[in-house]
Amino acid sequence: MVELYFFQPLGSHSGRVYLTLLEKGVEFVERELSGREFEQLDPPYLAINPKGQVPALVHDGRVLTEGAPLCEYIDEAFPGPALRPADLRERCNMRRWSRFIDSDLGRALMMIHWNRIVPEFVGRRPRAEVDALIARVPDPDRRRAWRSAYLQQIPAGDLTESHRRVAGGIERIEATLARQAWIAASQFSLADIDLLNFYGFLARWAPDLVNETSTPYTMEWIRRMEERPAVRQMRARSRLVRPPARTAEG
Amino acid sequence: MVELYFFQPLGSHSGRVYLTLLEKGVEFVERELSGREFEQLDPPYLAINPKGQVPALVHDGRVLTEGAPLCEYIDEAFPGPALRPADLRERCNMRRWSRFIDSDLGRALMMIHWNRIVPEFVGRRPRAEVDALIARVPDPDRRRAWRSAYLQQIPAGDLTESHRRVAGGIERIEATLARQAWIAASQFSLADIDLLNFYGFLARWAPDLVNETSTPYTMEWIRRMEERPAVRQMRARSRLVRPPARTAEG
Repeated sequence: MVELYFFQPLGSHSGRVYLTLLEKGVEFVERELSGREFEQLDPPYLAINPKGQVPALVHDGRVLTEGAPLCEYIDEAFPGPALRPADLRERCNMRRWSRFIDSDLGRALMMIHWNRIVPEFVGRRPRAEVDALIARVPDPDRRRAWRSAYLQQIPAGDLTESHRRVAGGIERIEATLARQAWIAASQFSLADIDLLNFYGFLARWAPDLVNETSTPYTMEWIRRMEERPAVRQMRARSRLVRPPARTAEG
Repeated sequence: MVELYFFQPLGSHSGRVYLTLLEKGVEFVERELSGREFEQLDPPYLAINPKGQVPALVHDGRVLTEGAPLCEYIDEAFPGPALRPADLRERCNMRRWSRFIDSDLGRALMMIHWNRIVPEFVGRRPRAEVDALIARVPDPDRRRAWRSAYLQQIPAGDLTESHRRVAGGIERIEATLARQAWIAASQFSLADIDLLNFYGFLARWAPDLVNETSTPYTMEWIRRMEERPAVRQMRARSRLVRPPARTAEG
């Protein structure tokens, strides 16, 4: 049996693993956690992943965590279409892209996003309750990130740097998709799944940065991705918990 | 033909790829670059890797770059002992460790290290010459990192945070090696290669942090690693360009 613990709306690490399962054709039981209710910090989930991080995959009773390793695991452990290129050089390139998308670009986007969303997310709770919630985050790095965002104490220089990295990423992605149909290889791969989940939303959230005029090849790639049956299936199951808003400064 | 472009002394990304080739038994041509002479920024190397980052592997005329993807490529593309666990769950765990070692722990150690070594490294050159050298670094993130370290402008909070992360990493590694012989699996794997190259030097550079009393299991693992024929071979070819010094604050 395969169970996936994930957050809605489906995106970033939750979305990449959810979509990998759909693309691979793996049947799985949905275990949705409410981020708004901080269910990832409740004892039942901490018993599954003591770090309190989402997603987690439980395969025949064994727990596996962390996005990129999890997606490669799914591709290796289950039958279905290959989501990693057969050509080993392209596979190497896929891993480089996955790394860039979630570590470099993804971290920059998350910093910008958290800085906006965290205060709103926890805003209606009394301060003492928020402090108590944040104190329950097991990982000290995460705890500090939550606290900085909640108190709006992310240094301005760090935010500027993140905006700069996003701008550089947008250029690099567009230049690559101008040359080839898929981001990392001659075929659709896990890196495309990552790009859609960590980055694809910018066309809606920051249309001044990602649009038909500035990034036509990226827009064409997004359309092709959205037409895939697995992506449609994910969209049908995804729930937006808040209306679209700007994510990156212009 | 396999050629490896790398820095001496062998460690971090250069060391992990060099040692992976030796463990795998791949014959390769050594293309050593001088970091002190900034040879990675000279046109001949930029023609190989336009980002000016080291190491790079040239396999039958095609260039491959970046540490973790490169090491997996070597394991997949050449005959020799398997350096990735056959068990897919252990393989997933290996990738999680490699990621933690180079991205989280390794970045923290590099920040501390660069802050000390860069000024000394370029110190005897006139300021204008250093500015001109740094201006040649192709990647803007790297350029800024070099400049911050050279001017000793890394924010104190960032350095404190890096020291905190290193301390957390030391605990996590010791706790893991207390339970099992190898860092990520029931067998030696690429994650052990990474750990030796990104972290093993702390026993010499920060003996107050990594030593027989505080981290006996780590010390035992280091001894076992140093006895491996491939590691001995790497040590015999490695040249220390500066005497040992403290790397992490106590």
